[in-house]
Amino acid sequence: MTERYTLTFQPGDLAISDVAPDESILRAAMRSGVHINASCGGAGSCGKCVVKLVSGETVAERASKIDDADWESGLRLACQTYLRSDVVVFVPETSRMGNAAVLDREMVGDRKGKLLTPAELESLVPDWTLDPVVKKVCLTLPEPSALDNLNDLARFKKGLKDEHHLENASVDSIWIRNMPHILREQDWSVTATVVDTNYGYKVINLEPGAVCNEDYSVVLDIGTTTVWGQLLDLKQGVSLAQASEYNRQISFGEDVISRIVFSQKSRGRERLQQAIVNTINDIIDSLVASSGIDRMKISHLVAAGNTTMTCLLVGIDPKYLRMTPYVPPADFIPPVRAANLGDGIEVGRHVHLYTFPSVSSYVGGDIVSGVLGSGMFRTEKITLYMDIGTNGEAVVGNKDWLLATSCSAGPAFEGGGIKHGMRATDGAVESVRIDPVTYDPTILTISEVSPVGICGSGIIDAIAELLETGVITQNGKFRTELDTWRVRETEGANEYVLVEAEYSGTGDDIVITEADIDNLVRAKAAIYAGIQTLLESVALDWSDLEQVYVAGGFGKYLRIEQAQAIGLFPEIDFEKFTFVGNGSLLGARLVSFSKELLRSAEQIATSMTNVELSDNQTFMDYYMAAMFLPHTDMTYFPNMDKVLNETGGAS
Amino acid sequence: MTERYTLTFQPGDLAISDVAPDESILRAAMRSGVHINASCGGAGSCGKCVVKLVSGETVAERASKIDDADWESGLRLACQTYLRSDVVVFVPETSRMGNAAVLDREMVGDRKGKLLTPAELESLVPDWTLDPVVKKVCLTLPEPSALDNLNDLARFKKGLKDEHHLENASVDSIWIRNMPHILREQDWSVTATVVDTNYGYKVINLEPGAVCNEDYSVVLDIGTTTVWGQLLDLKQGVSLAQASEYNRQISFGEDVISRIVFSQKSRGRERLQQAIVNTINDIIDSLVASSGIDRMKISHLVAAGNTTMTCLLVGIDPKYLRMTPYVPPADFIPPVRAANLGDGIEVGRHVHLYTFPSVSSYVGGDIVSGVLGSGMFRTEKITLYMDIGTNGEAVVGNKDWLLATSCSAGPAFEGGGIKHGMRATDGAVESVRIDPVTYDPTILTISEVSPVGICGSGIIDAIAELLETGVITQNGKFRTELDTWRVRETEGANEYVLVEAEYSGTGDDIVITEADIDNLVRAKAAIYAGIQTLLESVALDWSDLEQVYVAGGFGKYLRIEQAQAIGLFPEIDFEKFTFVGNGSLLGARLVSFSKELLRSAEQIATSMTNVELSDNQTFMDYYMAAMFLPHTDMTYFPNMDKVLNETGGAS
Repeated sequence: MTERYTLTFQPGDLAISDVAPDESILRAAMRSGVHINASCGGAGSCGKCVVKLVSGETVAERASKIDDADWESGLRLACQTYLRSDVVVFVPETSRMGNAAVLDREMVGDRKGKLLTPAELESLVPDWTLDPVVKKVCLTLPEPSALDNLNDLARFKKGLKDEHHLENASVDSIWIRNMPHILREQDWSVTATVVDTNYGYKVINLEPGAVCNEDYSVVLDIGTTTVWGQLLDLKQGVSLAQASEYNRQISFGEDVISRIVFSQKSRGRERLQQAIVNTINDIIDSLVASSGIDRMKISHLVAAGNTTMTCLLVGIDPKYLRMTPYVPPADFIPPVRAANLGDGIEVGRHVHLYTFPSVSSYVGGDIVSGVLGSGMFRTEKITLYMDIGTNGEAVVGNKDWLLATSCSAGPAFEGGGIKHGMRATDGAVESVRIDPVTYDPTILTISEVSPVGICGSGIIDAIAELLETGVITQNGKFRTELDTWRVRETEGANEYVLVEAEYSGTGDDIVITEADIDNLVRAKAAIYAGIQTLLESVALDWSDLEQVYVAGGFGKYLRIEQAQAIGLFPEIDFEKFTFVGNGSLLGARLVSFSKELLRSAEQIATSMTNVELSDNQTFMDYYMAAMFLPHTDMTYFPNMDKVLNETGGAS
Repeated sequence: MTERYTLTFQPGDLAISDVAPDESILRAAMRSGVHINASCGGAGSCGKCVVKLVSGETVAERASKIDDADWESGLRLACQTYLRSDVVVFVPETSRMGNAAVLDREMVGDRKGKLLTPAELESLVPDWTLDPVVKKVCLTLPEPSALDNLNDLARFKKGLKDEHHLENASVDSIWIRNMPHILREQDWSVTATVVDTNYGYKVINLEPGAVCNEDYSVVLDIGTTTVWGQLLDLKQGVSLAQASEYNRQISFGEDVISRIVFSQKSRGRERLQQAIVNTINDIIDSLVASSGIDRMKISHLVAAGNTTMTCLLVGIDPKYLRMTPYVPPADFIPPVRAANLGDGIEVGRHVHLYTFPSVSSYVGGDIVSGVLGSGMFRTEKITLYMDIGTNGEAVVGNKDWLLATSCSAGPAFEGGGIKHGMRATDGAVESVRIDPVTYDPTILTISEVSPVGICGSGIIDAIAELLETGVITQNGKFRTELDTWRVRETEGANEYVLVEAEYSGTGDDIVITEADIDNLVRAKAAIYAGIQTLLESVALDWSDLEQVYVAGGFGKYLRIEQAQAIGLFPEIDFEKFTFVGNGSLLGARLVSFSKELLRSAEQIATSMTNVELSDNQTFMDYYMAAMFLPHTDMTYFPNMDKVLNETGGAS
């Protein structure tokens, strides 16, 4: 646990006690609701976020925006300054948003939902132990003699049994072929890679000598838009590296339907498979590069993806997924050799790819994985699990029952269909505050570099702020009568300038358009209505939920009150919310670490019931009702009702 | 059962009652001990085997050697004449051997050991049922609907369970990939090829429509010299075609040691594998051609071979087989995809090759297969099983214990190392009689065509006759003082002219040399001594044996009294002998027909104990004692002792 310091803002003496050494003063201020101007996303280039040190130790980049005298007097850029002790800073009026006091709104520092560490995430499922389904074991066999002339294979199997209690292991014929040499190469010391299959132990690789500690896996979340990967150390039970790439299939279509359509063209299926294989190879390249691990020491691949992504990866025709009665080709796909997919995933020929089982055409292995990772399948509590990616999927239930659905939300929350949308990587605007008087924004970007676009949490923040400050109405239209140049008309449509060209990393203005807002409203309405329909199908209500797990690429940055402000979630107790980040990657990690949890994934898939929303009139009614900011029915939005009445935002 | 007729020879009125319609009078005469001259092997070209019909119906080729008047008077060539009723023939003095009476020796028609029909052979193992380990099943699945939108794979598995009680089947991923199309191609009617593995059912092939009756296998006996194959109908439980070819590996070495040596050269292992794969492809070509079966309907391959042949076929380095402590690479080799061996065995990609497990470096899967086929592993009786091929292997035991050994006999019994030796195919001299007065031979060839060489049984016959008539001494040397041109010296070595050039199919004399005799004596001595050592190791004697199964390429033609005459077997009760022909092919057939027997093969291999003869002094002593015709110790050869004393053959 790294040290935490207390940071006190003046005027107003607002103090927050959990500032880490790598959190800038600007970032700490934004998450606490303290408004400090910033146009460059924390890159240190706009020079607007000046604060004055009152007491305490800090380290700071010496920014060109501050001259020697000011530096000596304690002036610093908040975005470039980090705490080394408890610190008090004064926010000058010039750095405050408009005329706002430092603390211009109720303190919301604890209104962010739980954000868990990797270890905490892996503990959502209780009581599992590190025991991978694929693992390496070291053997030292007795040398044969005239009195002990057991054949090599039987000797090897006896060693597996005597030294590791692995009985009746079968051995891939390629290793039977090579066994005589490998056993003798290092004087009968050998390392075997053993899979514990549903049909018994299977030896898939042999290496001379004792190298069983070099045992790694790669787990993958195969999103329609983004693919994430982690390299795991299977002996230590830790993640060594993480990487992500856009799914290269995007060039053949943005969503699953367009991919399925493309797959029916000549060589379409092969091209889509090769595209995802190339994407995975890119990810493995970067995992291997950043960890320094030999890729031939990777023993296992685990992939969680929606049903279409899984089909395309393993080479199954997804044609019938989009035709009534929406019959998927398979639930459980046996592990396939990674090197046999397309031109081959670049790992050892023995390495198998495990794909999570799917539930239906639109509730796939990524959701099964997420449900696994959340631990909801082992709790008594009524739990909602949501994964907000290119689609929105939701699962309600507990250890006794699980009900799932898929809401056609579209890719807005991943930055798709948004004019300057992007995924949650460096330079994406992830936090936005808007001054209620000047309507100027303060922004923070991921990695605090110059802004190049807006990711899902940034869009939610921006639209929540635009709504709360009355820049847009509840039906998502700009109030053009406001006194600000930031709301302007371009080519017949209204937009809000979030970042001026001079501060952007692209050299162009970064804007939010009415079309962007409309896309986001449709997306959040689909998810809200989908969950509502799911709950109603088991006679439950939002208030019955005892815990809510939110997964998705933006999970790390999403602020719950902003998501509630736009109506993605109702205003239920913040304490019930937990952000699991990339839930399907979490589940994939657990499945790679524990064969017991791998079996659980299969049980989850089998026990999960799918609720189909297409042609579901209840869903359609709820969807229409949710096409408003935050909702037409404000019963679940009492705070927003109050705010909008105060700001005159209610329309 | 075809009809049998009685054939009576005059003078002497010797009658035999079991002459089939396709057995020539000459062949019936020879196996009964009736001497009729014949130099052309039954081809009808020498015109020596003239007989005169006395009564009964016959059919005969009109030979040019018989003029119209003679034909009208009832003269026929015995080799061209077949019975259609009970028949009496008179053998003129000109057709009799020398001055011999028709019946010049004790009638030995019943001294031939049991020769079994295929159905009888398959009944040596009691109580098995047709239930192949690989089989096709037809399914008719319910079409999916909105109310029954089970995924394709689960629907298919449910069909396997509901219609065929095949639970928890796994499906090869290629068929999961293709399943959506195949299920819909013939309106949800589909044929699955299912393997019952040790780890559960596995679906390896899918075909649209109901084609489960087209279900075949190919079983193979992979000999060092000769490869035999049969095409089986797995639904009917019958063999449809048989074929054989020389093992193409012969060009890289004649015996297993020279093959192992070659395998260590650059690309040697690959070339040997390709050679046997090519041989198998030749055999499959001819099986497919003669049966008219589509090769893509072959579901399974089963191969029995010695340990070296099995290693080379599946691509395992046999290097350590010939190095102390003689450790084989593997006992149980899992089934491998036939298409993956070398450039590929030309069957469907789904077809697996099952290889019989081996016991030791020199007791291989062919012996396990033979022991299985003989049924000795299920009987109380103390049984000897011998397989005489390029090597001689012997197994003693019963249902409670099995002891095996391998005798380095060399290939003499397969015609190897014999000047005019050949394998038992068309034109091979298979039966020989020698006139004790003139020393002229009578010969019969396989398929009764002009002789081109001598097969194993012909060599045994010839040497037995040469010994009994005193042409050779008991130490295998020619008596050059005899009054016959047939014993002559060529290039400093003595030889016996078995077929004159004018009657041979090659245009050259076919001879038996002293070197041939020496090779045969070494071979039979090794086998006899090996069995003796094996018996002694469990404190048994020849007389304790209750039954003897003799397998080998010549099994069908071998005459037991001739084999005893040369000392290959002791003179124990003829009734105890059964010829099983190609025993390993028999076992392979049974294993393909019955999964229960396939499991038995594994039990046999596990329970069999190997007795190593190399460096075994007892064996060496017995071997030296057996290097004589028939043996230095005549205790077990009372008849031959008498014969040799009468003919003066004893030296």
